[in-house]
Amino acid sequence: MDLVPGNSLICGTPEEGRRLAISLALQTSFAIQPDEHVQTIVRDAYANSPDGLIAASQVVATEFATVAAANNYWR
Amino acid sequence: MDLVPGNSLICGTPEEGRRLAISLALQTSFAIQPDEHVQTIVRDAYANSPDGLIAASQVVATEFATVAAANNYWR
Amino acid sequence: MDLVPGNSLICGTPEEGRRLAISLALQTSFAIQPDEHVQTIVRDAYANSPDGLIAASQVVATEFATVAAANNYWR
Amino acid sequence: MDLVPGNSLICGTPEEGRRLAISLALQTSFAIQPDEHVQTIVRDAYANSPDGLIAASQVVATEFATVAAANNYWR
Amino acid sequence: MDLVPGNSLICGTPEEGRRLAISLALQTSFAIQPDEHVQTIVRDAYANSPDGLIAASQVVATEFATVAAANNYWR
Amino acid sequence: MDLVPGNSLICGTPEEGRRLAISLALQTSFAIQPDEHVQTIVRDAYANSPDGLIAASQVVATEFATVAAANNYWR
Repeated sequence: MDLVPGNSLICGTPEEGRRLAISLALQTSFAIQPDEHVQTIVRDAYANSPDGLIAASQVVATEFATVAAANNYWR
Repeated sequence: MDLVPGNSLICGTPEEGRRLAISLALQTSFAIQPDEHVQTIVRDAYANSPDGLIAASQVVATEFATVAAANNYWR
Repeated sequence: MDLVPGNSLICGTPEEGRRLAISLALQTSFAIQPDEHVQTIVRDAYANSPDGLIAASQVVATEFATVAAANNYWR
Repeated sequence: MDLVPGNSLICGTPEEGRRLAISLALQTSFAIQPDEHVQTIVRDAYANSPDGLIAASQVVATEFATVAAANNYWR
Repeated sequence: MDLVPGNSLICGTPEEGRRLAISLALQTSFAIQPDEHVQTIVRDAYANSPDGLIAASQVVATEFATVAAANNYWR
Repeated sequence: MDLVPGNSLICGTPEEGRRLAISLALQTSFAIQPDEHVQTIVRDAYANSPDGLIAASQVVATEFATVAAANNYWR
């Protein structure tokens, strides 16, 4: 399993950086507990729990801070 | 779907930067789970759950830290 | 609605910076969901829920980190 | 009410910086909702709720990051 | 018990850095409370609780920010 | 009570830095509420609540970010 897609934090654009941040955030659950049951319960949380979605948005925001800093904010 | 509106973190003013941070924070849920049911439950959480609103405010604060750093804090 | 009071993160003193951080943190809920019902339920949470107050304190701490960095920590 | 005791983030030692971070973290609740009832329910949460104490510890950690950066980590 | 595997934050690649961040995040529970019962209840949370997994993903994101900064983002 | 053991954030190694971060994180509860009852309920949370342990791990990650920055990441 690739934990960091492309093995790099460098992205051409903010859009690509955001996509990387979302990937990093979402795949951590499966890196922690790589079984099918987990995929099912986490997907169910994303589909039905607003609290789960907001908590996942917080993870994305934290990962994006790292990716954006890595790319010097695409200034 | 555009994950980063305008594909840039650079904003003319703190006010525009704040608006970008709110956009980034709120659209992550729909980027994670792009279906109509999610839009309904998340909007309902924002309309009726103070805990959901405070948690979303935390996401906004985190995104704003990134946007503000990107813009060198509009110094 | 002004999302950033004064449209600037620059403040003369830590005290003013702290006040700005509290403003930013508290008004996000109303920026997300600008209706009167939300004002009522969030105020009720602040008045009666210690968990809500601690979560709001976390948002303030995060906003203050940004404001303090913007002002080079008033060194 | 003083939001930042001494109106400065500069402290002579890490110990003083930690004390400032705890002050900042704990007084936010009362800055948000300055009434006696809030003092009672928040103190009760600190006295009886481990979750409340851990959440408050998170706020302290976030404030301390700011105070430590302000003091260049007392290097 | 080694709290930081290899006693270093320096990693050759983002992939290795991510693995270190996950290690740091997951072993803290056992550093806090080093008994077998804890290992059982935490593993059960990872296997069955989507909220636990999302909260753990937040810890990983925070540790990864530190590891990535330590490695100058592998630029 | 010492809030910062040794009154310094400077540590010889990442391992020592991690130990300091754990100390800082765990003792905040007792700094906030210095009575024996709190020690009992917080220790019980660490012994029996996976959510409490994950939340405490988040505090440790935040403190470690500060300690690691203070030590220039032991580069």
